[in-house]
Amino acid sequence: MPSYTAPIKDMQFVLHNVLNVTESSIPGYEELEADFTSAILEEAGKLTSEVLAPLNAVGDKEGCRLENGVVYTPKGFKEAFAKVKEGGWTGLDMPEQYGGQNMPYILGSAVGEMFSASNQAFTMYQGLTHGAASAILAHGSDAQKETYLPNMVSCEWTGTMNLTEPHCGTDLGLMRTKAAPQGDGSYKITGQKIFISSGEHDMADNIIHLVLAKIEGGPEGIKGVSLFIVPKFMVNDDGSLGDRNAVSVGSIEEKMGIHGNSTCVMNYDGAVGYLLGEEHKGMRAMFTMMNEARIGVGMQGLAQADVAYQNALAYAKDRLQGRAVTGAENPDGPADPLIVHPDIRRSLMEQKSFIEGARAFILWGANLIDAAHRSSDSAADGLISLMTPVIKGFLTDVGYDMTIKAQQIYGGHGYIEEWGMSQFTRDARIAMIYEGANGVQALDLVGRKLAQDGGKHVMAFFDMIKTFIKDNAGQDAEFDKNFLEPLKAASKDLQSAGMYFMQNGMKNPNNALAGSNDFMHMFGHVCLGYMWARMAIAARQALADKGGDPAFFESKLATGRFYMARQLPATALHLTRIETGAQTVMALDSANF
Amino acid sequence: MPSYTAPIKDMQFVLHNVLNVTESSIPGYEELEADFTSAILEEAGKLTSEVLAPLNAVGDKEGCRLENGVVYTPKGFKEAFAKVKEGGWTGLDMPEQYGGQNMPYILGSAVGEMFSASNQAFTMYQGLTHGAASAILAHGSDAQKETYLPNMVSCEWTGTMNLTEPHCGTDLGLMRTKAAPQGDGSYKITGQKIFISSGEHDMADNIIHLVLAKIEGGPEGIKGVSLFIVPKFMVNDDGSLGDRNAVSVGSIEEKMGIHGNSTCVMNYDGAVGYLLGEEHKGMRAMFTMMNEARIGVGMQGLAQADVAYQNALAYAKDRLQGRAVTGAENPDGPADPLIVHPDIRRSLMEQKSFIEGARAFILWGANLIDAAHRSSDSAADGLISLMTPVIKGFLTDVGYDMTIKAQQIYGGHGYIEEWGMSQFTRDARIAMIYEGANGVQALDLVGRKLAQDGGKHVMAFFDMIKTFIKDNAGQDAEFDKNFLEPLKAASKDLQSAGMYFMQNGMKNPNNALAGSNDFMHMFGHVCLGYMWARMAIAARQALADKGGDPAFFESKLATGRFYMARQLPATALHLTRIETGAQTVMALDSANF
Repeated sequence: MPSYTAPIKDMQFVLHNVLNVTESSIPGYEELEADFTSAILEEAGKLTSEVLAPLNAVGDKEGCRLENGVVYTPKGFKEAFAKVKEGGWTGLDMPEQYGGQNMPYILGSAVGEMFSASNQAFTMYQGLTHGAASAILAHGSDAQKETYLPNMVSCEWTGTMNLTEPHCGTDLGLMRTKAAPQGDGSYKITGQKIFISSGEHDMADNIIHLVLAKIEGGPEGIKGVSLFIVPKFMVNDDGSLGDRNAVSVGSIEEKMGIHGNSTCVMNYDGAVGYLLGEEHKGMRAMFTMMNEARIGVGMQGLAQADVAYQNALAYAKDRLQGRAVTGAENPDGPADPLIVHPDIRRSLMEQKSFIEGARAFILWGANLIDAAHRSSDSAADGLISLMTPVIKGFLTDVGYDMTIKAQQIYGGHGYIEEWGMSQFTRDARIAMIYEGANGVQALDLVGRKLAQDGGKHVMAFFDMIKTFIKDNAGQDAEFDKNFLEPLKAASKDLQSAGMYFMQNGMKNPNNALAGSNDFMHMFGHVCLGYMWARMAIAARQALADKGGDPAFFESKLATGRFYMARQLPATALHLTRIETGAQTVMALDSANF
Repeated sequence: MPSYTAPIKDMQFVLHNVLNVTESSIPGYEELEADFTSAILEEAGKLTSEVLAPLNAVGDKEGCRLENGVVYTPKGFKEAFAKVKEGGWTGLDMPEQYGGQNMPYILGSAVGEMFSASNQAFTMYQGLTHGAASAILAHGSDAQKETYLPNMVSCEWTGTMNLTEPHCGTDLGLMRTKAAPQGDGSYKITGQKIFISSGEHDMADNIIHLVLAKIEGGPEGIKGVSLFIVPKFMVNDDGSLGDRNAVSVGSIEEKMGIHGNSTCVMNYDGAVGYLLGEEHKGMRAMFTMMNEARIGVGMQGLAQADVAYQNALAYAKDRLQGRAVTGAENPDGPADPLIVHPDIRRSLMEQKSFIEGARAFILWGANLIDAAHRSSDSAADGLISLMTPVIKGFLTDVGYDMTIKAQQIYGGHGYIEEWGMSQFTRDARIAMIYEGANGVQALDLVGRKLAQDGGKHVMAFFDMIKTFIKDNAGQDAEFDKNFLEPLKAASKDLQSAGMYFMQNGMKNPNNALAGSNDFMHMFGHVCLGYMWARMAIAARQALADKGGDPAFFESKLATGRFYMARQLPATALHLTRIETGAQTVMALDSANF
């Protein structure tokens, strides 16, 4: 049975040694003293490892069950959800006005990683609610906020996002769900939505569905899509629950993983809905949820990689098999532990260096979101907008690979469900797909984000790296050689790729799009390389200051050197591929496949 | 519901245009006329797509069931097994003397790919039997051959391999299963074996277990391991079945995939066993099975990639979503098919170019095996021995990745079990683990095979590539540029890596072993690059000869160009990693992870 330990020390390192959060002028950051964040993280760590993690396998094995229109969640989920609500975890970064604690998003992110790592399927119930509440917060009327937010912030009511239909996912312009105005400001919503996470379940008194639909007579395609609030139970003026709305679950899907979350087909049969935001501007409102969700999904990639790694590491230290080629390391035992073998070590280092780099990347991203939202920092807003598809696509692609590597360390036992490693891979697999499949993230990055605001944000990104290298070079030859030089080379590869797109994408956009996946991955590598260089500086500083555990900081440096030496050079391969353009990719007529 | 179509045209191309099998002097190859192989492949294609493929999802969903010591296979398996036996497919390449058809292994390989692709879990019942029969054929006494082979060749009796125990897999020296001599030539076998594929089931009258055990009083460790034949039912002198032997199934494992195959814990409680081969030489005998099994497992990587790709391709042509960025390609429809999008096309080309390259690689490998066995060609034997870990490790690692790419094309539907794409990934996952986890393959390649016979075989490999390039250069500039030059560069990378190992592995073997996984992958790429260059020559020749379907040959060339331009250059990244040696891999003390 696998276990989970919250990586508190590592999170504290990123918050305080790398990002120096208390030195920031972002409102709310002044509260983030090390003792305070430590207390919060310890509490969250306890809850996630003691309550949520033991339910992870239960949820996988038992799954959700639909009986007479009611979806039953796995045994223990309800009680755990009560504990999560009780602790106030669901509204950590929500406004106090609606019952939240108004803490910075960066702290919510750190806690969120623990939740996802310990039990992804369970955490989605509150995750979707958070996203729906954010959309209402950003686009709702005051009355809508008053009506829905307090109960959503506390998760007495949960939320959903309804986008996909049987014949359309990415291409929402093809949507068929209709909204008929009723003359009283409300609409009747009719249509079928699929893949609705947490669509129906037994853990909340009400479910607030956010539903994309086309108002009859509106513009064709994506321009005619509006967003509606469709409560499962109507809400009376006094806040009490009224009639059941005409929305019902059609079936629940049998999936590869995240069995503990109910994935529903939802039928809207003239259900009463209320416009959220403006008519025909549904996509804009939905993107409030979507951007948040995409970063959250990127975090899931990291989270599953981490919990899988923790268990693989324990197994590699415990399982005795073979002897170190350089001489027995456990001479009194029948064999040496797996971790002595270089190829096992390589795999563990790949996992460790990805996870710690990704954690810093996510927290840095959350820092930018706080700067954008709390300090109206438009440069930060541009940067996080640019990097959102990278966080989602790169971290889930690689995060998934890492769960496979972790599973591989178990040998045959990794394939047996009882050991739990299979679940980590199966749960992690969805993150590459939902909230926009990773191919769509790459398209968003190359087809949209690169050129946004005249390419200002990507230019700012390159300037940031360049300035960082300039500011930190020449102080230590070892650091320059092992950190700054690889970062410089990788960043140059990324710039060359951007240049190739500019020069060749005009005459044929396929020359850019054929390299979009490679570009997203090389961008991710550069971001992790940048984080590793920053972490190395922080670790060296801490060692010089003789503050804290020197073995921890030395381990940081060793892990960083591994990433820079063996993982970051992947940018060169990506560039090679990108520079071949669309030719070999598009040469074959589709009939000749 | 996914479907499977046997790739007969592609197999015929490799057999007749690339390998020119009928021009070979290998005994039996003279029979392999195109009409003859076509007839066999058509028959096998019919059986696999019509009988085995429809049972694939059934096996996954239903799994195997243990009741009162009896394992029940999924509904329909028994009837399908009867059809397979009836058609004589189980003894295709086995000696006529024992009821086989004595056809070359290369034809068995082509048929085997179809069986694995259509239903991997089902095919394992006969696959393990084939391996066990081969070991008896190679190491058994005449009496043993007479007693067991006829019924194993026909699959009236099936076979198993028993290596793993709860505390040891790779490190079989730790084995605890004991064999006590009974004075009459027989032994009593006592111990527990785990992960025994097809260990117990209801499709055969008898099961012949090959079991590794230590004869009491023998040498310590791996040098004291012997191989035994342990029948489920004793076989009387007249060939009839006698008493039940003291071997029984303890439980069946709940696995991530291959649910249709029964993976058993087997308990030997003083079961009667007969020595197969020599005392204490069990590993040698087991390797007869193992080498065959490793090539078969490599083929499973290809097979699952192919069936997943076939379905992903159909979906990409069928599913309408979005518009081609270069202008609508299906202007009368609501949207264009997925296949118009460059990133989808990239993914499909990655799959296609891997699959066709891997198929040629496997069939070339089978050709070498035939040369080694039927013509006693020691160079061929050395070459296939060198490449066996590459076939197993590279083709299953990449084959698995390809099933993930195929699943990804389905978006959310790929994650729903009903669509069948999840099963392909879950079934493919085991191939990276069993018959020696891929890390062990990499270790075998770098730690053992490279230096075998003084490095003769790897040198021969490089000479072969060099000669091939020399012999074919200068005839066509396009071919030189798009095929020979990339092959030359990749082969140079591989040689540089070998050189690095020689120069740095002596002083510290970890410098070689830390790069073993990279080396295995770059070796695989060079092999596929070599196959693509050979296929390009064959396709160009066929076009010049105006023989056959020009679109097929043009497609070959286009697919080959993709592989050479975008996939083969991965060797450079592998070399970069290898040349960093063990330092960053081994720097961290295991306590500091």
